[in-house]
Amino acid sequence: MSAQETAAPLVGIVMGSRSDWETMQHAAARLEALGVPHEVRVVSAHRTPDVLFEYAATANARGLRAIIAGAGGAAHLPGMLAAKTAVPVLGVPVQSKALNGMDSLLSIVQMPAGIPVGTFAIGNAGAANAALFAAAMLAHDHPAIGQALEAFRTRQTDDVLANDDPRK
Amino acid sequence: MSAQETAAPLVGIVMGSRSDWETMQHAAARLEALGVPHEVRVVSAHRTPDVLFEYAATANARGLRAIIAGAGGAAHLPGMLAAKTAVPVLGVPVQSKALNGMDSLLSIVQMPAGIPVGTFAIGNAGAANAALFAAAMLAHDHPAIGQALEAFRTRQTDDVLANDDPRK
Amino acid sequence: MSAQETAAPLVGIVMGSRSDWETMQHAAARLEALGVPHEVRVVSAHRTPDVLFEYAATANARGLRAIIAGAGGAAHLPGMLAAKTAVPVLGVPVQSKALNGMDSLLSIVQMPAGIPVGTFAIGNAGAANAALFAAAMLAHDHPAIGQALEAFRTRQTDDVLANDDPRK
Amino acid sequence: MSAQETAAPLVGIVMGSRSDWETMQHAAARLEALGVPHEVRVVSAHRTPDVLFEYAATANARGLRAIIAGAGGAAHLPGMLAAKTAVPVLGVPVQSKALNGMDSLLSIVQMPAGIPVGTFAIGNAGAANAALFAAAMLAHDHPAIGQALEAFRTRQTDDVLANDDPRK
Amino acid sequence: MSAQETAAPLVGIVMGSRSDWETMQHAAARLEALGVPHEVRVVSAHRTPDVLFEYAATANARGLRAIIAGAGGAAHLPGMLAAKTAVPVLGVPVQSKALNGMDSLLSIVQMPAGIPVGTFAIGNAGAANAALFAAAMLAHDHPAIGQALEAFRTRQTDDVLANDDPRK
Amino acid sequence: MSAQETAAPLVGIVMGSRSDWETMQHAAARLEALGVPHEVRVVSAHRTPDVLFEYAATANARGLRAIIAGAGGAAHLPGMLAAKTAVPVLGVPVQSKALNGMDSLLSIVQMPAGIPVGTFAIGNAGAANAALFAAAMLAHDHPAIGQALEAFRTRQTDDVLANDDPRK
Amino acid sequence: MSAQETAAPLVGIVMGSRSDWETMQHAAARLEALGVPHEVRVVSAHRTPDVLFEYAATANARGLRAIIAGAGGAAHLPGMLAAKTAVPVLGVPVQSKALNGMDSLLSIVQMPAGIPVGTFAIGNAGAANAALFAAAMLAHDHPAIGQALEAFRTRQTDDVLANDDPRK
Amino acid sequence: MSAQETAAPLVGIVMGSRSDWETMQHAAARLEALGVPHEVRVVSAHRTPDVLFEYAATANARGLRAIIAGAGGAAHLPGMLAAKTAVPVLGVPVQSKALNGMDSLLSIVQMPAGIPVGTFAIGNAGAANAALFAAAMLAHDHPAIGQALEAFRTRQTDDVLANDDPRK
Repeated sequence: MSAQETAAPLVGIVMGSRSDWETMQHAAARLEALGVPHEVRVVSAHRTPDVLFEYAATANARGLRAIIAGAGGAAHLPGMLAAKTAVPVLGVPVQSKALNGMDSLLSIVQMPAGIPVGTFAIGNAGAANAALFAAAMLAHDHPAIGQALEAFRTRQTDDVLANDDPRK
Repeated sequence: MSAQETAAPLVGIVMGSRSDWETMQHAAARLEALGVPHEVRVVSAHRTPDVLFEYAATANARGLRAIIAGAGGAAHLPGMLAAKTAVPVLGVPVQSKALNGMDSLLSIVQMPAGIPVGTFAIGNAGAANAALFAAAMLAHDHPAIGQALEAFRTRQTDDVLANDDPRK
Repeated sequence: MSAQETAAPLVGIVMGSRSDWETMQHAAARLEALGVPHEVRVVSAHRTPDVLFEYAATANARGLRAIIAGAGGAAHLPGMLAAKTAVPVLGVPVQSKALNGMDSLLSIVQMPAGIPVGTFAIGNAGAANAALFAAAMLAHDHPAIGQALEAFRTRQTDDVLANDDPRK
Repeated sequence: MSAQETAAPLVGIVMGSRSDWETMQHAAARLEALGVPHEVRVVSAHRTPDVLFEYAATANARGLRAIIAGAGGAAHLPGMLAAKTAVPVLGVPVQSKALNGMDSLLSIVQMPAGIPVGTFAIGNAGAANAALFAAAMLAHDHPAIGQALEAFRTRQTDDVLANDDPRK
Repeated sequence: MSAQETAAPLVGIVMGSRSDWETMQHAAARLEALGVPHEVRVVSAHRTPDVLFEYAATANARGLRAIIAGAGGAAHLPGMLAAKTAVPVLGVPVQSKALNGMDSLLSIVQMPAGIPVGTFAIGNAGAANAALFAAAMLAHDHPAIGQALEAFRTRQTDDVLANDDPRK
Repeated sequence: MSAQETAAPLVGIVMGSRSDWETMQHAAARLEALGVPHEVRVVSAHRTPDVLFEYAATANARGLRAIIAGAGGAAHLPGMLAAKTAVPVLGVPVQSKALNGMDSLLSIVQMPAGIPVGTFAIGNAGAANAALFAAAMLAHDHPAIGQALEAFRTRQTDDVLANDDPRK
Repeated sequence: MSAQETAAPLVGIVMGSRSDWETMQHAAARLEALGVPHEVRVVSAHRTPDVLFEYAATANARGLRAIIAGAGGAAHLPGMLAAKTAVPVLGVPVQSKALNGMDSLLSIVQMPAGIPVGTFAIGNAGAANAALFAAAMLAHDHPAIGQALEAFRTRQTDDVLANDDPRK
Repeated sequence: MSAQETAAPLVGIVMGSRSDWETMQHAAARLEALGVPHEVRVVSAHRTPDVLFEYAATANARGLRAIIAGAGGAAHLPGMLAAKTAVPVLGVPVQSKALNGMDSLLSIVQMPAGIPVGTFAIGNAGAANAALFAAAMLAHDHPAIGQALEAFRTRQTDDVLANDDPRK
């Protein structure tokens, strides 16, 4: 367990199934790298709805500033979390088998007016970006996270600049 | 209030928003015509999640044999009801504005293994068919409903036979 | 042949082609586990239409309470069964090669008003869920099935709870 | 009733519902103009499946050389006709309300190997083209139809040539 | 070279690229099995447009009763053949790499009113079915082909009947 | 000009074209109602790219805590803002004419790993929800906004509860 | 007839049907405004294929530097022009009735390697942009066109800058 | 480094990520074969936006006559280049993982009126065709390129003619 996990978590990463971890680990790895205290849980909207409700209902009191929720297919986890808490929910559509995550994406992003879920790209990129977004949200109150985020952005720019000949 | 509504309801019709009534009234009208006792409620997965949970949790004890649930966009109502009760849930994708109900359909039908939702066509046809399906489920234990259903089926066949020249 | 298959079947599982068995076995396995007497047949809407009609026409008299029908591509099997019997038909879209089952799904779910097919997710999840749904329909008249279903639901909830750290 | 309808019909136009006539009249009008004897019927795969089977089973003996079948949504009519007769079936996807005929198209065109349906464009253009295709099939044995078809093709070419300035 | 290829061909099979042969061989194999004289050519709408035009323009005089045309992506071959001949054109959408043949399908089936292409399923099933459809078109004037087609249809029905237990 | 606009803005609402205001006014109205100081500008990624860059580059220094960006079609505005600032960008896909906003949605949500855009539903619901999400982000540091947000959420729940019979 | 039309045309605008003029006039208007000599013709790939071939075959000799081709549905015009000339072809997908131009877009853009068509957006925006693109291609050899294009670009930027408050 | 790369480049090939080179090398190979001087760079719209702007702003002065830009997912590179230069931009949608390049295609082709991007097919074919299109644009002023292009087109036609039996 890393230092970022022993501190009181600022971000919760939840997912609908253990198999989503292959995708959602990219969120965890990014938070870890940026020094954002976080926790990780499997919470299924369909198989453990009561846990989902309790997780969301206590999120604010437990100090969570954002919840990153990944799910696939008829992905109800992000939207139902958002229904139970005003803590910002970041949705990650996991790539599904038959429809390649288009079902996951529409199930998460097409929320009706009143309950928002900030949605990211299907799959690994979306998981990583949800973590970067959470860090950006925290940067104002946690300058160290902001600095780590800026350093990350500078580094990825430098990486492109230093390797801009694709034939090498 | 009709006779079918004063009897203890066997079927619950719920929908995510008042605007879904334009679609879901076709389910109510069909149940009414077939003599199936039912009730009608607006229950929003996102705006009244606690009501949704309570509705589902008490459905069996209240004698409901099926729940017809209509919703549009990121439609979480049918799936979350099914997460909280083993009473069969019949999902009706309401036609959404931008994506014509494709988002509603995928959000309802693509449930993960473990929690089923029987899904019907987008829009009015789906609402009417969910009611016919509920009646068929009840026919075994409620012969009058079964007879009404058979009569309906015979009548719609006869209607086609009697009007099979489209130019008249 | 298991005990559930020697008893008079309550559920019929049919599929349009032998190759659909890879998907539909998940329905059979789930019915088996829940103690639901059932039968399994290949019935092709296109290659054996007369068998399809006879299967549907005799379903009620033979005591079937539900028919689970799986098919892919231009999937006409579930809808044509429903045209010939009022016994509830549960449709399972089999994942097709080129279009990943989107054609199967639309061919099954978009039934016109008058003849319903309760439709489930594309592929294995849909097959398993059709079986769970059939069990839920039977629970009222067959308490043992209802108890088995509740036990299954409790177990899958417990499985998530007991394994909610995806990194372990 | 026109001359083409009193002669023994060579082509049958069938459709799943009276409302499909708005589309399918374009097939009838084109056959009429080309002097192809034909008949028109509403035959519903779902509401009158027995009529569908009888229509197909007797088509060859009655002298039909082609059947033009239009249907919308989960459109099973063309494929089920083709399952019951070797007479060529020409499918016309009628534009559906929610999904604009994409469901109709896939339900008709994605037939499994073994039972073919020649499919045409969604809507009016498809209906007109199915009639032109039927005429082309008949041209070899019915030279007058072939000549009428050639005259039609020449005329439509001349129409474009004579009006090739879109601003006039 | 088989007997069906030395006889004056009744059906031409053309395709836009050599790589389409993997799909289109299923049309050739089916024609071969049914005893339909045919020819096979690569004709590219985009790379050999003049050959395409000449092929179509001489098709009728050469005795072709149908042309089966397979192409992928922006598939213009079937439609351009149909523009140059009244001989019925049967289009086969070849499965494309990125879009799985949805581009091929729409490029072939969505022809404007005036020039028809009878379209079949994406990939191998479509190729086989185009051949079956061509045989059905020829059955009236070539009874031996009609008998072979009926025998094929009976055989495939019998195959399903004899193997209707998918677990064996 | 309202009080929320004279205060130093915490949220910037930008859009690619004046015609997007019809959608984006729902974001402005919601921020106004919640007492969130904000500003509104037309900034076109394609027609005023330099303004876009400057807007993003100065956003943090000007005190913006979030940027809500709406655009349609090949919607590059949200992603390019996010490329130039670490301030969280909330993307709103405006419903486009031909493709109903599916192009807008994919152009905004499918960002590669490294630069996140939190994306909301197509059209008015997405605009309103982006505002609610921005308010939720600000709630920790601006308790009055948090209280207004909670009051809004309570009110919309009460509205459903008080009007749960859709027939009245 | 404007001055730009009496000069030897540098750009040809062709379209598959008179009804496409509603879209393609936006290309003509833009060329007119930029002082680009051009011509306008209806040329149907399907109804006048010989004219299409002759138009393309003589395009280079007649001095055309680009051909803007608009078509809808199974849109073969741009690709077939490109098959017959090395003059750059700019394709404009016209919005179709049932599928909103998605069929037009895929039929034009998904050309196989070897014959390119530069494709623009569905509908009016695509027509206008094809004209702007043609002007950009000509700018090197025709400085006046280049200057007119730069002036247009500056003006559209200034228009946004001068009207960047959407509420006014 | 080839001769075509040491000469002052007429065409710039840029791509959003090193991984796009697998696709974009087909553009480079084609330019190389046709003797078109060119350069190759990785330029990321999202990670190096300033480089993108400078690249576009100096393109004309550096003598570039066309820019071929490949990107995947929310592909903003081609459109943003076009926003900063009147030099023609040729967009290549790189096939993305989840959505197979449909997101890339729509993000590139659906540009609003005012800023055009000529778009080519998803993947390798698109990259090759963008190069052929660039060569066609240059042919007027660079006869050697025009001759090389004609030779290529003749050769690919001859290749089909010489190998028109797919079974050999």
